[in-house]
Amino acid sequence: MSGKYGIITIGREYCTGGLDIARAVAGRLGVPIYDKELITLAAKESGLSEEAIAAGEKRPSGSLLYNLYTMGSELPLSDHVFVAQSRVIRQLADKGPCVIVGRCGDYVLRGRADVLRVFLHAPLEFRRRRAAAEGLVPPDADEKAASALLQKEDRRRAAYYNFYSEFRWGEAGHYDLCLNAAMGGEVCVDLILRAAQG
Amino acid sequence: MSGKYGIITIGREYCTGGLDIARAVAGRLGVPIYDKELITLAAKESGLSEEAIAAGEKRPSGSLLYNLYTMGSELPLSDHVFVAQSRVIRQLADKGPCVIVGRCGDYVLRGRADVLRVFLHAPLEFRRRRAAAEGLVPPDADEKAASALLQKEDRRRAAYYNFYSEFRWGEAGHYDLCLNAAMGGEVCVDLILRAAQG
Repeated sequence: MSGKYGIITIGREYCTGGLDIARAVAGRLGVPIYDKELITLAAKESGLSEEAIAAGEKRPSGSLLYNLYTMGSELPLSDHVFVAQSRVIRQLADKGPCVIVGRCGDYVLRGRADVLRVFLHAPLEFRRRRAAAEGLVPPDADEKAASALLQKEDRRRAAYYNFYSEFRWGEAGHYDLCLNAAMGGEVCVDLILRAAQG
Repeated sequence: MSGKYGIITIGREYCTGGLDIARAVAGRLGVPIYDKELITLAAKESGLSEEAIAAGEKRPSGSLLYNLYTMGSELPLSDHVFVAQSRVIRQLADKGPCVIVGRCGDYVLRGRADVLRVFLHAPLEFRRRRAAAEGLVPPDADEKAASALLQKEDRRRAAYYNFYSEFRWGEAGHYDLCLNAAMGGEVCVDLILRAAQG
């Protein structure tokens, strides 16, 4: 990869097809992509189990599992997870070009000049079709129920991002490139690759 | 122009170089660009003078000129101007491919499938350099004063957009393509052209 931006961070609304786009970008550039892998890597780094990391990511503050994990700790488990994942993200970025999906990657790597910060969104109608095609909503869910499910997951992502960053999830000013994924996956991949060239 | 999107609307923060980018896009596509021309065209359309349109755009609700123009009218002058400009924007879009800068073009043309909605922003530091180079801030203005001037104009644009649209200026979800102009004018032009192809 010879572009201006070696690191590409991708945030996305739920069901935009963002992960497929991120994979295609990484594939075209021949660089690794980190998404769920961050959970495993952060687990190794922090000494927490993968289950604990996964539980912490979801912030289910009332659950028994969550409370068991956080007992006796000064920091809530979710904060431990964020700190561990942030450290891993910085180490990966130092290692070389890659694509990092979610996990406030853009915020964690703020201040680095070689980071292209991408955000993907799409109209609810587009995302409902994707969710139905991928079986992410019950087959009998009506438009309202499907939208509510998508928006609930969006709110979870927004809450996570807004809590751990100083920024506002999905506000154009905090990204280099915000794309409506309804333009098409191929278009989005081309746009990200062109932007990464600089 | 053979792309999927014949009409390109461009909103932008102050001093991003957005007008230059818009002109370059229109030039590369060989289509007309409408910016200040909308004032003249709206004036012809509405029967208001160009001066009245310009006064209405600025919404200086306390000024004598503004009050003289609105006397005896049910609608504030600024609303007359918005209505007249919106009608002109729709007529221009019906006529054929073009680039429309500002004036809530994306909102006015909502629902059309052939409209690519672009928003350009940039960090304050980048915009301060541009403003200084173009003499838009007093030569002796310090960083704080220059930023305040840029943000004041941003607030004016945001207020205009948020007042007349149902949307929120600069929120990624309402645009197809939001670009950090600090990536460079040439990059932005390329990205808009690629997106417009579909």
